[in-house]
Amino acid sequence: MDKERFYSHFGEIHNIFEVLQILDWDQQVYMPKGGSEQRAESFSTLSKIIHEKITSEKTGEIIYAFEKLAETDWDRAHIREAKRSYEKQKKIPTQLIQERAKVASITQSVWEEAKPKSDYKTFLPHLKKVVDVLKEISRCGDEQNPYDFLLDDYEPYITTKILDPLFENLKNELKILIQKYKVKNLEESLKPIKRNVSKENQEKIGIFLLNEIGFDFDRGRVDVSVHPFTSGTMNDVRVTTRYSDDFLPASLFSILHEGGHAIYEQNLDKENFKYPAGESCSLGIHESQSRFYENIIGRSRGFSEKYFSKINKLSSNAFEGIALDDFYRAINTVYPTFIRIEADEVTYNLHIILRYELEKKIIKGDVKVDDIPDLWNEKFEELFGIKPPTFEKGFMQDVHWAAGLMGYFPTYSLGNLYAAQIKRAIEKETTPLSDFVKNGKLGDLKEILRNKIHRFGRFYPSNELIQKATGEPLSETHYLDYLKEKYENLL
Amino acid sequence: MDKERFYSHFGEIHNIFEVLQILDWDQQVYMPKGGSEQRAESFSTLSKIIHEKITSEKTGEIIYAFEKLAETDWDRAHIREAKRSYEKQKKIPTQLIQERAKVASITQSVWEEAKPKSDYKTFLPHLKKVVDVLKEISRCGDEQNPYDFLLDDYEPYITTKILDPLFENLKNELKILIQKYKVKNLEESLKPIKRNVSKENQEKIGIFLLNEIGFDFDRGRVDVSVHPFTSGTMNDVRVTTRYSDDFLPASLFSILHEGGHAIYEQNLDKENFKYPAGESCSLGIHESQSRFYENIIGRSRGFSEKYFSKINKLSSNAFEGIALDDFYRAINTVYPTFIRIEADEVTYNLHIILRYELEKKIIKGDVKVDDIPDLWNEKFEELFGIKPPTFEKGFMQDVHWAAGLMGYFPTYSLGNLYAAQIKRAIEKETTPLSDFVKNGKLGDLKEILRNKIHRFGRFYPSNELIQKATGEPLSETHYLDYLKEKYENLL
Repeated sequence: MDKERFYSHFGEIHNIFEVLQILDWDQQVYMPKGGSEQRAESFSTLSKIIHEKITSEKTGEIIYAFEKLAETDWDRAHIREAKRSYEKQKKIPTQLIQERAKVASITQSVWEEAKPKSDYKTFLPHLKKVVDVLKEISRCGDEQNPYDFLLDDYEPYITTKILDPLFENLKNELKILIQKYKVKNLEESLKPIKRNVSKENQEKIGIFLLNEIGFDFDRGRVDVSVHPFTSGTMNDVRVTTRYSDDFLPASLFSILHEGGHAIYEQNLDKENFKYPAGESCSLGIHESQSRFYENIIGRSRGFSEKYFSKINKLSSNAFEGIALDDFYRAINTVYPTFIRIEADEVTYNLHIILRYELEKKIIKGDVKVDDIPDLWNEKFEELFGIKPPTFEKGFMQDVHWAAGLMGYFPTYSLGNLYAAQIKRAIEKETTPLSDFVKNGKLGDLKEILRNKIHRFGRFYPSNELIQKATGEPLSETHYLDYLKEKYENLL
Repeated sequence: MDKERFYSHFGEIHNIFEVLQILDWDQQVYMPKGGSEQRAESFSTLSKIIHEKITSEKTGEIIYAFEKLAETDWDRAHIREAKRSYEKQKKIPTQLIQERAKVASITQSVWEEAKPKSDYKTFLPHLKKVVDVLKEISRCGDEQNPYDFLLDDYEPYITTKILDPLFENLKNELKILIQKYKVKNLEESLKPIKRNVSKENQEKIGIFLLNEIGFDFDRGRVDVSVHPFTSGTMNDVRVTTRYSDDFLPASLFSILHEGGHAIYEQNLDKENFKYPAGESCSLGIHESQSRFYENIIGRSRGFSEKYFSKINKLSSNAFEGIALDDFYRAINTVYPTFIRIEADEVTYNLHIILRYELEKKIIKGDVKVDDIPDLWNEKFEELFGIKPPTFEKGFMQDVHWAAGLMGYFPTYSLGNLYAAQIKRAIEKETTPLSDFVKNGKLGDLKEILRNKIHRFGRFYPSNELIQKATGEPLSETHYLDYLKEKYENLL
């Protein structure tokens, strides 16, 4: 009875989360523009219902009643995760949660208008409100380490104490690697991939590749949105992409990226995915799966060897006359640029480290919001050797802070590190990944990932999962080794 | 405070209903097939939440607290409707509601499999369960008139006492009219419209016509589904259609039909549409708007005169060589057939009356479920002069009974009657509707409907609304006059 009550209660919470994802997907993909206000109210009603459900005394009772009766390891893991979330949520006054939702919603709208104009004067007072409420929330936990309380929302059990030395080392090494691997002329380097490919052909290529990597179309679909994303879980997982007429890589790599997220969701444990420890492990582990398919597979030489001529054919020969090697080099162009989401594998993590270091200081109170714009530019120049010409290309480029997300960025880099570490582990146990690609065995690779990562959900915390999957603790060295091995060959 | 609480409470209930509509739309239009089980659970969770909200003691308190403070006529109308629904729902044991949902869900699946095989033996035991629970529910109100309790869910305030004489007269007249107006040869009569029109061209025609009748694409969209439907309200109203390669009328008239539903929803009162008396008046009034655009406008001679050549052009000249008069005659072919949803304006209401008369007897207990199949065929022959060759084309053709919907069918006929009566009233006040069509004044017509019908929502019960909009009580005579006037000219 107590067992049944536990699973039925958390199953219902899960069901509402699924509904929120469908609503979000719909809003970004098909909703008519007039619908946004009504949609915001639907979100608000459902969010309120979920928050009440999660923090109600009843939820506490349900958890503690089942705790004494847990029989299986999964039972215990679900209880652990349910408690963790319940006890954390109870620490945060509801009024702060509502305040964050409110200021974030307003600040996001302000950001959308202000960003293209680099209008920091309008934006900063709103950002200040977001930061104020985040600072308050961050102090609801361990007051000595406020940033950890935020980080834990996205990467449970990971702390600044773990990240600091790792990111410090990564930063120092990357600064050197960038100077070594960056191309002389960006335009020149990208020339082989600046070809016109029709939307219809890009769509065909996307569907072909999703099938290749093992995305199950009976349990998912692909659509178009301004910003690509993945939504849903298990039997209804939807990815989106976007089409740029003269730049196939935009859709090609976003499809592989979102495909990686989607395959993770489609391969969670069937019996447990609806319950607290059955969902995906963390944002970092999620990102490791997307980066695995986007970069480690998609930007590998083996991938170009296997698929370039097929891609050319599906593009109605848009790449006729381009040598395979030039294509491969072009999609691996290293060059410091201002925009994180357009960054290559070598420069990408420096973008994250910049944000991580700033965020920690902002939350601690060592950096005032008014000082962010210039400080960002200063730090950017220090890391990349170039200075953003506008605030649009500087601190205003990402939506995250406006949306109340601090502690989120580090998970992107963790994803890259995890992915390289998983690559190394698989290769130690089997053969080089390029063999999987070249021999048309991406299905086998998916099975390995399912066994090592997907099926565990958050049964283990992310660092334990990585330890278990790779035989080693989380480390930045595999990622650095991966970069060196790959890009030395490209010099 | 009590006022605010009332509006916020019912606004939240409305928001959840909107979410249910989006989920249903998504399921019918885009959901991958693997998602159905998860979707059923999301529906179940949200339905439970809504049912709890609607029948909770808190809802009663909120209504009664506001009742004493109502200031405006809208306040009072919202309270009236909130009370009506609350008090009715409270009469029905929750267990019966759940039972209906459960047996209806199972019976629908059984029906889907059994129908194409006319497998009544498998179907009947399930239908019996549905009927049993409906009979129980129907006796939760006035036990003398159990059918009225069901009917009232779909057409509030309308009773069998109102419908019986109306439908009796309609039936007797229609039986005569059908014999008079039916064509000699169905195939021959449909020939001018059996042309191949590509899906793309049909889509263009649909969008063109939706724009013509005043559908607002900023607050809506059009998609494809197996069965056309309309979903949503006010700022997010979505219609669907389906495309039959060699039969444009399938999409043409379903677009106009759903367009009528959609225009109604887009033109409810902006300040009130979220609250109990602000939503659409009844299914009958809803159907009057769809039938108005589908039949009274779309199948009028004026419409053919105005749009036939444009439709031909948008069809890449698929109708080249067809005379306007032949097109007009073909889309108004009268001929008794077995399937309700394919029926013409003259035969359609007899299909409804057959169901209405059967339903009343079934709910009363005068007809056993086992006797339905043969009784249907008998009655069908009596009304139409032909006998269904299979049960698929007989009592198993519609999903309604399997889905637990009895008392619903009469609203289709009410829609036809209301529409003809509204037509007559508008023509008395202004000019023949054909003038609106031919002069490109469909926008003005929409405004008239908005003023007479849409903006009132369910401020008035449907019969009062019709009295107010047309100056007369509901009557079948205008519909019969409309048929006679139109089809005499087609002899």
